Amino acid sequence: MNTSIDKLLKSLTLEEKAALVAGADMWKTQEIERAGVPSITMFDGTNGVRKPGSTQEMGLFSENMPATCYPTGVALGSTWNTKLIEEVGEALGRESLALDTQILLGPGVNMKRSPLGGRNFEYYSEDPVLTGELGAAMVNGLQRMGVGASVKHFAGNNQETEKMVSNSVVDERTLREIYLTAFEIIVKKANPWTVMTSYNLLNGTYTSEHDFLLRQVLREEWGYDGVVMSDWTAVHDRLKSLRAGLDLEMPGPAKYNAVKLVSAVRSGELDESVLDASVRRMLELVAKVTAAAGSKEARQPWDVDAHHELARRAAAESIVLLKNENGILPLAAGKLRRLAVIGQKAKKPRYQGGGSARVTPTRLDIPYDEIAAMVGGEDRLAYAEGYRNDNEPDDALIEESVRLAIQAEAAVLFVGQPEGTESEGYDSKTIDLPPVQVKLIQEVAAAQPNCIVVLCNGTAVAMQEWIGGVPAVLEMWLSGQGSGRAVADILFGRVNPSGKLSETFPVKLSDTPSYLTFGDGNQQAVYSEGIFTGYRYYDKKELEPLFPFGHGLSYTSFEYGGLRVRTAGGVATVEVDIRNAGDLAGQEVVQLYVQDEESRLIRPVKELKGFCKLQLEPGETKTAVFTLTPRDFSYYDPKRGQWVAESGWFMLMAGSSSADIRATARVDMAFEAQQSPSLHRYSLIRDWMAESRSREVLERFMERMNGQISDPVSLSEQSLEFLGDFPLIKLIQLYGQEMLIERSPESMVDELLATVHQTKV
Amino acid sequence: MNTSIDKLLKSLTLEEKAALVAGADMWKTQEIERAGVPSITMFDGTNGVRKPGSTQEMGLFSENMPATCYPTGVALGSTWNTKLIEEVGEALGRESLALDTQILLGPGVNMKRSPLGGRNFEYYSEDPVLTGELGAAMVNGLQRMGVGASVKHFAGNNQETEKMVSNSVVDERTLREIYLTAFEIIVKKANPWTVMTSYNLLNGTYTSEHDFLLRQVLREEWGYDGVVMSDWTAVHDRLKSLRAGLDLEMPGPAKYNAVKLVSAVRSGELDESVLDASVRRMLELVAKVTAAAGSKEARQPWDVDAHHELARRAAAESIVLLKNENGILPLAAGKLRRLAVIGQKAKKPRYQGGGSARVTPTRLDIPYDEIAAMVGGEDRLAYAEGYRNDNEPDDALIEESVRLAIQAEAAVLFVGQPEGTESEGYDSKTIDLPPVQVKLIQEVAAAQPNCIVVLCNGTAVAMQEWIGGVPAVLEMWLSGQGSGRAVADILFGRVNPSGKLSETFPVKLSDTPSYLTFGDGNQQAVYSEGIFTGYRYYDKKELEPLFPFGHGLSYTSFEYGGLRVRTAGGVATVEVDIRNAGDLAGQEVVQLYVQDEESRLIRPVKELKGFCKLQLEPGETKTAVFTLTPRDFSYYDPKRGQWVAESGWFMLMAGSSSADIRATARVDMAFEAQQSPSLHRYSLIRDWMAESRSREVLERFMERMNGQISDPVSLSEQSLEFLGDFPLIKLIQLYGQEMLIERSPESMVDELLATVHQTKV
Repeated sequence: MNTSIDKLLKSLTLEEKAALVAGADMWKTQEIERAGVPSITMFDGTNGVRKPGSTQEMGLFSENMPATCYPTGVALGSTWNTKLIEEVGEALGRESLALDTQILLGPGVNMKRSPLGGRNFEYYSEDPVLTGELGAAMVNGLQRMGVGASVKHFAGNNQETEKMVSNSVVDERTLREIYLTAFEIIVKKANPWTVMTSYNLLNGTYTSEHDFLLRQVLREEWGYDGVVMSDWTAVHDRLKSLRAGLDLEMPGPAKYNAVKLVSAVRSGELDESVLDASVRRMLELVAKVTAAAGSKEARQPWDVDAHHELARRAAAESIVLLKNENGILPLAAGKLRRLAVIGQKAKKPRYQGGGSARVTPTRLDIPYDEIAAMVGGEDRLAYAEGYRNDNEPDDALIEESVRLAIQAEAAVLFVGQPEGTESEGYDSKTIDLPPVQVKLIQEVAAAQPNCIVVLCNGTAVAMQEWIGGVPAVLEMWLSGQGSGRAVADILFGRVNPSGKLSETFPVKLSDTPSYLTFGDGNQQAVYSEGIFTGYRYYDKKELEPLFPFGHGLSYTSFEYGGLRVRTAGGVATVEVDIRNAGDLAGQEVVQLYVQDEESRLIRPVKELKGFCKLQLEPGETKTAVFTLTPRDFSYYDPKRGQWVAESGWFMLMAGSSSADIRATARVDMAFEAQQSPSLHRYSLIRDWMAESRSREVLERFMERMNGQISDPVSLSEQSLEFLGDFPLIKLIQLYGQEMLIERSPESMVDELLATVHQTKV
Repeated sequence: MNTSIDKLLKSLTLEEKAALVAGADMWKTQEIERAGVPSITMFDGTNGVRKPGSTQEMGLFSENMPATCYPTGVALGSTWNTKLIEEVGEALGRESLALDTQILLGPGVNMKRSPLGGRNFEYYSEDPVLTGELGAAMVNGLQRMGVGASVKHFAGNNQETEKMVSNSVVDERTLREIYLTAFEIIVKKANPWTVMTSYNLLNGTYTSEHDFLLRQVLREEWGYDGVVMSDWTAVHDRLKSLRAGLDLEMPGPAKYNAVKLVSAVRSGELDESVLDASVRRMLELVAKVTAAAGSKEARQPWDVDAHHELARRAAAESIVLLKNENGILPLAAGKLRRLAVIGQKAKKPRYQGGGSARVTPTRLDIPYDEIAAMVGGEDRLAYAEGYRNDNEPDDALIEESVRLAIQAEAAVLFVGQPEGTESEGYDSKTIDLPPVQVKLIQEVAAAQPNCIVVLCNGTAVAMQEWIGGVPAVLEMWLSGQGSGRAVADILFGRVNPSGKLSETFPVKLSDTPSYLTFGDGNQQAVYSEGIFTGYRYYDKKELEPLFPFGHGLSYTSFEYGGLRVRTAGGVATVEVDIRNAGDLAGQEVVQLYVQDEESRLIRPVKELKGFCKLQLEPGETKTAVFTLTPRDFSYYDPKRGQWVAESGWFMLMAGSSSADIRATARVDMAFEAQQSPSLHRYSLIRDWMAESRSREVLERFMERMNGQISDPVSLSEQSLEFLGDFPLIKLIQLYGQEMLIERSPESMVDELLATVHQTKV
C-alpha cells in the first residue's frame, strides 16, 4: 500500500498536489482522474447524515435528504452507554454509505463551558473523560462500517459568539486537563480518520495553523497520523496551516490558495516535502475510504424501521428522571381515566438543534400520539396548547390548560426552550424557560398536584421559579425522531429511566463557572475558571447546584457494596457490587471519582475517572470493575511540562451521581518518584533548607557571610517565617553586600549550587 | 533650584552618581559630602514609625524606637474619613521629623484580593477608589509636614506567598480598573515624593524593571516626576530597572550594582543620560526633604499624649458595629452590676500585625482596664481568660467563662486570629477563628444571651458557625495603641460607632472571588476573577456575603432623601440629604455607586465612585454632594487602549452600604462620541450591516458575487442569524472562490473597505 502511495505521490504534478489538499466544492475533495484518485464526499452529521441536494450546496436553510435523526449529543451523552453509542455509530455508518458519504463530520466533542453555549446540544458533556469515552465509542462504531469520522472542533471552541475571530485564552494546565483530554482519549482509543480544527484562535493563534496544537500535541505527543481538516473556511494563512499539519482546507475550490501553494513551492518559500506529507495523508485517506466503501453491498439502503427503533431506544436511554416525589411516575396507563397533555411541544416536538447538525428525519414520533396510543386512545386525553408564541403571553391558553388539568387525574406538561434558541451560530442569553411557560407550569401545578413536567432542551435550564411546586420532572433533551415514543415509554414505565446528567444543572445562571466572562464580546474568551469547569467548580466552591453532574433517578433502587481495591505498580483495580434492590429491572450508571488528598497544585475535589452502565434484574447483583492508571491520579504540571502523579493518599469514590457517593476507599498510591524540582538561582531559602545537603551548604555560607557583616542574620525558626520566602540571592543582596564588590550575587549563588551538586556526587 | 541641581549634577563623578541611586546602608541614601549632598533617612511605617537602633539594622525581630502605633491600614480604611487620615498623616510626619526620618515608607495601598492575604491588615480596602482617596489623604497629611511618603507596593502584589518570585498574571483591563487605580488617584491628588515598586513579576516582568508600569503608565500617562525606589532587594537587573525609571535601589550599599553601572556607562552599554535622569530625581528629592526638615523646630519631640489621643480617636472611628440585635449595645455603664469580660485578648490585646509595619508603641491601652474604668472599677467585672493556646483546647477555661457569664448581666468576648497569623511574609490558610475560640463563643452565647463578641483581626473572618447565637458583634480590627480605650468608648456609647467595612465579609472562604487559585504556589498568581474583586464579585454572582462592603451600624439612624442630579458636559453633580433620625449624634458614611445599564463589555453591577462622612446631631440634616466625571462612568477598553464612557443610561445609587441602597436616580449621560470601532479585514458581516454605507457596499458586492456562483447566498434575517458572525472575508472564502483565482480574499476586502471610505467622503 505504502509503495503504491509513494508511487502515486511521485506521479502527481505540483498543481494536482495543491488541488488535493483542498475541497473541490462544498462537500467533496478533488478527484485526479488521470491518476486514478477519486474524490471523497463528506457531510455534516453529529446525530444524523445531513446531505443536501448536491455537493455544491451548503443546504443550511433547506430540507435535505432524509436520514435518521438520532438523539443529539447532549442526549447521547446522558445515556453514559458506550455500547449503545457504538451501535448508533454503526447505524450512522450504514446510512452514510447508503447516501454515498465517506466521511461523516462528527462527533463534536467540545467541553460545555457554560449552559449558554449555543452548540451545547451537539456536545456530550462538561467532563473530558465521559466525553472522550463516548466519543471514542461513536468513532469506533462509525469507522467499523468503513466511514471516517471527523472529530471536532479542535480545540478551545466553547462558544458561538464571535467564534470565527475570538481568541480563547486558556492556560496550559487547563487546556491539557479539560479541553484536550477528550480528543486525546478518542485519538488513542479510536484513531479517527480525520480531525477537524475549530475557527477560533487559541492563545493568539488560529487553531487551523496552531503548531503546538496540531503538530506538537496531536501528532507528536499523541501519535496521530490521520488527516487534519479545517472547519468550513477556517483556514487563515494557508502556508502556516500546512506547515502546522493541517492537510485539507474545506470547503473548495480553494482556488486562490492553490495558486499560492504552487507559487510558494516554486519560489522556495514552502518546502515541497511539507506539501507531500499532507498529500500522502490525503492519499492514505482515499485508500481507506475506497477499501471500505467500495463494495456494492455497502451502499444498500438501510432498514429505515430498524434504525428508527434504534433512535427510539437511544432516546429512551437518554431521558433523565430528575425528580419523582412519592413515586408519581410511572403513570399507570390502564388505570388513568383522563390525562391532560399540555404544551405545544407535545404535538410539535422539538427534537434537534439548529445549524449544521440539523437533519431531515425519515419519520417523526409525536409525543401526544404515542401517549394516546399507550392510554388506549385520545378519549382519555385532554390536550391544551398552553403557549403559542413564547414572547406573547396568552392567558386564555393558560386558563384552558388549568381547566383541563383540574378535570384530569394528572397533567403532563411539555415545555422547553423555544425553537431556534439553541443553534450553531450564536449563544443563548438565558437559561430560564420563557416567562409564558413558567407561568403555565406554576398555574397548572397549583391546580393539579399530579403535575409532571417534561423538558425539551439542549442543555441545562434553571428551574428555581417553579420546581418547588412540581412533583416530577423528566429531562427529555433534544432526542431525535424517536423521542416521542421514548418519552411515552418512560412516562408509563415501559422503559425504566437510566439517563444521568452529563452536565451540572445550576440554580441560576450566575452560579455557573464561566459566568463572569462568558460571551464578553471583545473577541476574547478568557477561560478564567481554569480547570474548575462543571462539577469541579460546584464542588470546590461548595455551591449546591439544582441537580448535580451524574444525577438521574430510576423506578427501581440500587444498593452499593463496599469498594474492593488492589494496587500494584501505580495501577489500582477497583471493584464494587451493585444490587437492584427494587421490583423492576433497570440500569445503573456507576461512577468512579478520584480525589487527591494533598497536592502541590490546587486540584478539584474529585474527578470522574471511570463509569459503567449495568443492566440489573430485580434482586440481581453485578460487579462494576474499574482500572485506574497513573494518569488517572495525575495533574498536568505546566512548570515541568508533564503529567504528574504524586505518591500519597487518594480517596476513591463510587457514586450514583457526583453528589451521591455510595462507597469510598482511601488508598496510598506509590508512583515512580518524581524528580523534585532542583535548586536554581532563584530558589527560596526554604527550598534550600528542605534538604540536608543544601541546608548544610547554606548554613556554612551564612556563617561566612555573618563573619563579614555588622548585623549578622540567623536562620532561626522565627526569622525563617519571614525570610523563608526570600530567594537566597535576595538574602545575599540584603545582607552580603560586603562580599559583593567585584562579584555578582548570581555568581555567588552559582558557586553554592555547584557545591551542593559536588556534595551530592 | 533647577539650575543649582543642574550644576550639582554636572559636578558629580560617575562613581558618585552610581552611588546616589542606591542606599548607603539599610535605611539611608548615600551622602556625597564633597558636593554637599546629604543622605536621606527613611524607615518603615504604614501605621507608625519603625525606627531600629541604627540605620545598619533591619530591626524586624527586635524592639525599635517608641513611636505612636496608629490603627493599621484596614482600620484606617474602615473610618472612610479622609480628614481624619490626613490628621494621622500629619502626626506621622511630626513623629518622623522628631525621629530624624525624611521618608516614611508608606502607605501600602494594594488591593485585597483575598481575605487570606497576609498583609491585608496593612491595606485599606478591596476598592480602588476608596483606597485611592484615603491613600491620597495620608500622603497629603504626611507631606504637608515635610516628610515624603513612599506609596507601595507598585503593583500587582496581592499575596505574600512566594511574593519575591511569583508572577502576577493580570489582564490589562483588570490592572487598570482595579490594581492601578488607587496609585493613579494618589499620584494625581497627592504627588507622593516616592513610589516603591513591589517584589513580584507582573505578566512576566519584575515590577522593578517594568517599562510599561514604571515608564509608560506611571511617568508618561500619569505624569509622575518623583522618585521610584525598589522594595528592599527587589532590584533584579539593575540596568533594566534604571532604564525603566527605577531611580533608587534599596537597601545599600549596592556595591556590586554600583560597579556594574559605572562600567556599563564606560562601555557605552548604558547611556549616561539615563543615569543622570535618576540622579536628578534623587537630587530633587534631597532638596525637598532638606527644605522641609531643615528647620530646628521641625525636630521637636512630639506631644506623646496628644498623639495617643489621636490614636484613640482614629481607633474609635475604625471600629465597625456589625450586628446589634434589639439595641443590646451600647451597654449602660451606670446600670451594670456585673459584666463578664472574657478572652485573653482583653488583657493582652492584639493591636497590630507582623512584619515591617510592626511598631514599638509609646504606650498601650488595655481593653480590660478601660472597661473597668468605665464601669467604675474591677469589682463590677469578672474576667476569664477563655483560651490560652489556640491549638490546645482547654475545657476548664471555657467552663470558667460560662460560669462567669451566667453570673453576669452581659458578657463581652474578645476573640480574633492568634498573634502571628497575620503578617508580611506569609498568607493565612483560613478565615475561621481557631476552633477553641469558636467553641468558647458558642458555649458562652448559649449560657448568656446578652453576649457581645469583639473581634481583633486584620481582615475579614468567617462567622457562620457562631454568629446566629450572638446578638452583637463589634469588629475592632488591629487598631493600634489606643484601641483599648476606643472599644470601651464604643461599648458604653461614649462614641457612636461610624466605621464601615472596607472589605466584604464572606460567609465562607470558598465564596471569595480568588478562591480557586489564590496561593496556588506554582510561582504564579493568575488573577482569574478579573475585575470582579470584592463586592463586584458578590454582586455579579448574586452571592450573599455575611456582611457587605460598606456595612456598619450606628446607635442612631439616618434617613436618605431623594437624589438630585444635574448633568452637563459629561459631568454629573449628585446631591442627597441625610437626616439623623435618632436621638444620638452620629456619623454616616454616604456611599455613591454607579451602574452602567448597558455596555459593550461586561461590567460590575455597581462601582463605588464617591463617599463622604457626615457628622449629624439628632434631627440635623446635611447634604452630601458628589461630582462624577466621565472617568467615573468609564471602563477601560484594552482593544482601544483607553478609558471609554459610553453614552446612555446609568443608575446612580446612594447607600449606607453596597447592599443597602437608599436612593437611586437614572440618568441619561451624553459623552463625547466614541469613534465606533472602524471596519477592518476581519470585521463580521453584522458589523458591515450595522451602518447604512457599509451595508450598501456589502449588498452591491453580494449581488456581484451571486452573479458568479451557482448557489447564491442572501443576507436574509434568517441567514444572518447564522452568517452574521462570519467575517466578510470568510464569506468570500466560502462562496466567492470563482472570484478568487488570482486575487486574495484580503485584497478583495481591502477594496470594499476603500469603497466604504470613499462613500463616506
